[in-house]
Amino acid sequence: MRRLPLTLLAAGLLASGIASAVTTTIPTTAVKTAEQLRDRALHDDTAYQVTASLTTEVGARLAGSEADRRAVDWAVAKFKELGYDKVYTEPVTYPLWVRRSERAAIVAPFPQPLALTALGYSPATPKGGLRAEVVRFDSLDALKAADPAAIKGKIVYVDYHMERAKDGHGYGMGSAVRVAGPVLAAEKGAAGYLLRSAGTDAHERAPHTGVTGFRDPAKAIPAAALSNPDADQLTRVLAYGKPVTLKLDLDCGIVGEYTGANVIGEITGRRHPEQVVAIGGHLDSWDLGTGAIDDGAGVAIAMAAGKLIHDLPQRPDRTIRVIAFANEEMGLWGGRAYAEKHAGEVAKFQLGTESDFGAGPIWRMSASVKPEARDAIGQIAKVLQPLGVAYDAGRPGGGGSDLSQMHAKGMAALSLTQDGTKYFDWHHTPNDTLDKIDPAELAQNVAVYAAFSYMAAQANGDFGSAPGAFAKDGAGE
Amino acid sequence: MRRLPLTLLAAGLLASGIASAVTTTIPTTAVKTAEQLRDRALHDDTAYQVTASLTTEVGARLAGSEADRRAVDWAVAKFKELGYDKVYTEPVTYPLWVRRSERAAIVAPFPQPLALTALGYSPATPKGGLRAEVVRFDSLDALKAADPAAIKGKIVYVDYHMERAKDGHGYGMGSAVRVAGPVLAAEKGAAGYLLRSAGTDAHERAPHTGVTGFRDPAKAIPAAALSNPDADQLTRVLAYGKPVTLKLDLDCGIVGEYTGANVIGEITGRRHPEQVVAIGGHLDSWDLGTGAIDDGAGVAIAMAAGKLIHDLPQRPDRTIRVIAFANEEMGLWGGRAYAEKHAGEVAKFQLGTESDFGAGPIWRMSASVKPEARDAIGQIAKVLQPLGVAYDAGRPGGGGSDLSQMHAKGMAALSLTQDGTKYFDWHHTPNDTLDKIDPAELAQNVAVYAAFSYMAAQANGDFGSAPGAFAKDGAGE
Repeated sequence: MRRLPLTLLAAGLLASGIASAVTTTIPTTAVKTAEQLRDRALHDDTAYQVTASLTTEVGARLAGSEADRRAVDWAVAKFKELGYDKVYTEPVTYPLWVRRSERAAIVAPFPQPLALTALGYSPATPKGGLRAEVVRFDSLDALKAADPAAIKGKIVYVDYHMERAKDGHGYGMGSAVRVAGPVLAAEKGAAGYLLRSAGTDAHERAPHTGVTGFRDPAKAIPAAALSNPDADQLTRVLAYGKPVTLKLDLDCGIVGEYTGANVIGEITGRRHPEQVVAIGGHLDSWDLGTGAIDDGAGVAIAMAAGKLIHDLPQRPDRTIRVIAFANEEMGLWGGRAYAEKHAGEVAKFQLGTESDFGAGPIWRMSASVKPEARDAIGQIAKVLQPLGVAYDAGRPGGGGSDLSQMHAKGMAALSLTQDGTKYFDWHHTPNDTLDKIDPAELAQNVAVYAAFSYMAAQANGDFGSAPGAFAKDGAGE
Repeated sequence: MRRLPLTLLAAGLLASGIASAVTTTIPTTAVKTAEQLRDRALHDDTAYQVTASLTTEVGARLAGSEADRRAVDWAVAKFKELGYDKVYTEPVTYPLWVRRSERAAIVAPFPQPLALTALGYSPATPKGGLRAEVVRFDSLDALKAADPAAIKGKIVYVDYHMERAKDGHGYGMGSAVRVAGPVLAAEKGAAGYLLRSAGTDAHERAPHTGVTGFRDPAKAIPAAALSNPDADQLTRVLAYGKPVTLKLDLDCGIVGEYTGANVIGEITGRRHPEQVVAIGGHLDSWDLGTGAIDDGAGVAIAMAAGKLIHDLPQRPDRTIRVIAFANEEMGLWGGRAYAEKHAGEVAKFQLGTESDFGAGPIWRMSASVKPEARDAIGQIAKVLQPLGVAYDAGRPGGGGSDLSQMHAKGMAALSLTQDGTKYFDWHHTPNDTLDKIDPAELAQNVAVYAAFSYMAAQANGDFGSAPGAFAKDGAGE
């Protein structure tokens, strides 16, 4: 993090009047308007139409692909069509990873194909494929404990079953098996890495892709995820007790560098245009599905919330900034670039959070704000309560995926937790398509985002954004 | 059908004493043993183990493939392992169709890939792919009514939604769109054919393959099924009202002729070894899944039922013949070859039926038998009733898929209708895997097959099998 000289910073804070110790409150008129926005959102299908537009007209949009380019054009055009006051892009540069083809088979003892998908940053297998014996582990811990001699030259297979949960906490370990597992296996000399998909669909042969922790291509090994039924099958074959040989044919890898873009639309604040409520989602998706729940929905929720505020008789006091982030999937590239660029302005970020957990209804809110803004958060919670959103005052707010990076710089942030019970059945698979979205549930999300964004924009006072402000909540680098 | 000279036939009937007008009954001791078989079957996991063995050790087994060859070896070995008295094969010759690769994309106006799968007997697209405009129809009737001028050179897309039903009746129209649709489109000059999968899974990008009605390769056009979400997508794209161009790349086709085998295991009858109760399933599967519900389960149900009868203190009066048919999927080749070969012995087939509708519980029984055997069917029904099987005396029995061909020759037949509510979510897709089978439901099927087969084998009298006997029930060629 690059910090501003303290004197400059203090001067800035005094001048803008933000970050003061006075209790922050939301004016009654703003609360009333937020209630109207909330109720209007429930009967507005903008978010669904926006998701349908993105997923139909662009479809899958892997970061750096030709479709990703079209998605940027789409987002610029959509912001304009929705009447946003200001629309612009900011460049984001990242390694360009491509997937060309992928195939796998059990060679012996029972020859048959297996359905898998390569993981982000996986290199290709050698020409002609990688043929090696499989060694299975129940968990990441078992792999950690394993003697490298048992792994060297083999294909490591971590057969961990990810747990289904409303708050998605099973993805903690699930994604660790996918992110850290390949790196660990490579360190121990494995020739390749397979995991049982980090997903909760037990019966679909739709493997879940996702990023690995590989950062140094020289140390990376071919890595892929088996669908759950294929993992079942491999485990059954291994249970016969004979050596099992697999052949992996992955044609994928990093082919250079690419510069994409965060796309930003603003509803310009009437009184404090420089102060922003930041909301958003990420524009990129994995290539397998059309990125409806991950994260067309997030982009659409934020765009539609901004549009509802745009349609009010007058502009809000502060700016509503909607950010469609580039390349979240392969390592928060858009979020990190954004935070690097805007770290110096963190105190001007009134409050922020991103939607990136599908399209299920929001059921919990938590916040990382200064103590003097807790009452205002309580006021927001009261407006959201009829939507089924419970305020958990004991939890910090994280800001979502990409905006977690601005939160790490000191931006006050909410967490608006969606019901993720079914999210991991589909995310990162071919099945992430529009039909997974319930328009009414999506509209509930818009109601939450429109109401909270407006109230934050109209607040008398701030929520405590300042450089490094929320390190105590675990936000930091 | 090749018919025997009538005099020979009459002599044969008189000699064997079958097909008499005396009322057929099941002796009380046989009923008691059948009840024991039924109850024992519910606690026997042989069928599940057999299905697991076939789907794990062989996996997918497209007719004529190397895996199909291994499946034949597997079936011979499994019959022997289960203790069958006699195990043999009979050759079945059919056109050899292969699938090498398949790919499709919307080229314009919104470029993106589509998930599809080629249909059985589809030829390949020209080298470089088939690029053409799509023309959409709601139904087969709409296609029938269409002017060939609107179709010529285009890719016909029939967007028919198959209906979910416990008895699977939605597959009537669903499969007609797949079987007859491509032939009709080709006749009208179409360059290619697509359908919304004949399946009931609305949310999986797992297209359903299946056979077409193409018999003359010279008149065939490339034909494939889109998954339901991909069909939704194509329909949405078409709704923009612009011309939609697709590109299909199908590498598949008929490459010659192949001779596979029906595999037959028998529990030899003690008193009338030449008279047979015929049960079975089909050994081949489509190549996409591992053929657990279609039709590993059917083979396993019949094998396990025979095994339970085998384990009785003494052999049944008549022979229990379990047939694992070759290449049902691409046109009942095994069933037709079997019926051709055994038509002359039809009167010796006491009763028969095949399991080929998944692994859901049997809920209905119906029969095509002579009137004098209705009481015996009633006796069978009474034994099956505690399993939840309702006897519908007003419906004919069809004998199942391959054995419908022996029924057409005059074999008395049952229909044992399984609950097919979920069957068409998975059949003919990559998702037809072992995890779709509930072992308890599978065991219920074995209970039904073991009990009815034994009772039929022990009956005093026959069920009316005779050349052409059930033409009135719709059985015939």
